[in-house]
Amino acid sequence: MSTYKLSYFNMRGRAELARYIFAYAGIQYDDIRIEWVNWPTIKPSIPFLHLPVMEVDGVIIHQSLAISRYLAREAGLVGKSILEQAQIDALVDSLNDFTTLIPWNEKDEILKKKLLDDLFDNEAPVLLQNLANQLGNKDWFVGDSVTWVDFYWDVCFTTFITLRQDFAANYPNLLALKDRVEAIPEIAEWIKNRPQTVL
Amino acid sequence: MSTYKLSYFNMRGRAELARYIFAYAGIQYDDIRIEWVNWPTIKPSIPFLHLPVMEVDGVIIHQSLAISRYLAREAGLVGKSILEQAQIDALVDSLNDFTTLIPWNEKDEILKKKLLDDLFDNEAPVLLQNLANQLGNKDWFVGDSVTWVDFYWDVCFTTFITLRQDFAANYPNLLALKDRVEAIPEIAEWIKNRPQTVL
Ligand SMILES: [Mg+2]
Ligand SMILES: [Mg+2]
Repeated sequence: MSTYKLSYFNMRGRAELARYIFAYAGIQYDDIRIEWVNWPTIKPSIPFLHLPVMEVDGVIIHQSLAISRYLAREAGLVGKSILEQAQIDALVDSLNDFTTLIPWNEKDEILKKKLLDDLFDNEAPVLLQNLANQLGNKDWFVGDSVTWVDFYWDVCFTTFITLRQDFAANYPNLLALKDRVEAIPEIAEWIKNRPQTVL
Repeated sequence: MSTYKLSYFNMRGRAELARYIFAYAGIQYDDIRIEWVNWPTIKPSIPFLHLPVMEVDGVIIHQSLAISRYLAREAGLVGKSILEQAQIDALVDSLNDFTTLIPWNEKDEILKKKLLDDLFDNEAPVLLQNLANQLGNKDWFVGDSVTWVDFYWDVCFTTFITLRQDFAANYPNLLALKDRVEAIPEIAEWIKNRPQTVL
């Protein structure tokens, strides 16, 4: 059996999708949470200088989505055809593109508010309407069973509402999907017991 | 046999990786190049409002990397194990992250120069050193045969040198890899005959 070490900071952030998949699949792993104070010392040893990284049997994989796709493949969460895989990958990247636009590190609070307002007023509706169209009245985004993009939606949702409480209020099917993911017993258990962090 | 329509603008940009894979695999496709003047009319009909999109047998896939990964899988260019797939995905995303940092749309030429200088002085060496480490003295980034991340390196290289001519001069193994990709007969043929565009 493989051994897995996932290294990230003590937050959900870019590691939480991998943690959902680990929880869902019942795979044991080391959930290593690096303290900020130790990061400058550790950073030079990390490929491409970014967390998360995951060590699988001594091999290091970097990039959060590469890690998550790897685990999703192990867990049977990548769709049932290469077309479904591609549709899932595309939705994941669209959610990720939005996440990347969030001015996480903007120190000027007034500018940050302005940038966030612009993002949630103008970009979010495009993303959400297209996600809602893709979901329609199905249970899951792609195919007839849960995949890793459904998990990613819940992970993103949980963080986006900390930035704008009602951002998805007009999309009942997307809200229902979030509830459906959070009701999966292994995910519910993880959410209940995970370390509580703001992001 | 499937029919493929790839829609993008008349530039290499985010469609060129897919075009390399089509060329390499000898797959026929419609290389649709939308004129800027027509884009506002077409845009509302495009999922997530972004090009490229690819239509495969009537199904539309969005997101450049999802499209390219799909084609790479068809063409046998995704690596030989799920670990190789993940290593390739990670390198692709690291190259893509750098591309995303380029201030493509900055109108202020002085600010643009400053941002580009910062990017190529400070970020590029981290990316390049890590890519060079990954490549080592092998012929290809991952495993023992060419994969889609080797193509992506050549695609990125071709555009990055238009921004800073000597950006990779200190990385002979990366330069040799670019030459190796461009010497693949199907790729050489495509590069010779493709529409000539700046980006
Ligand atoms: Mg990333
Ligand atoms: Mg993209």
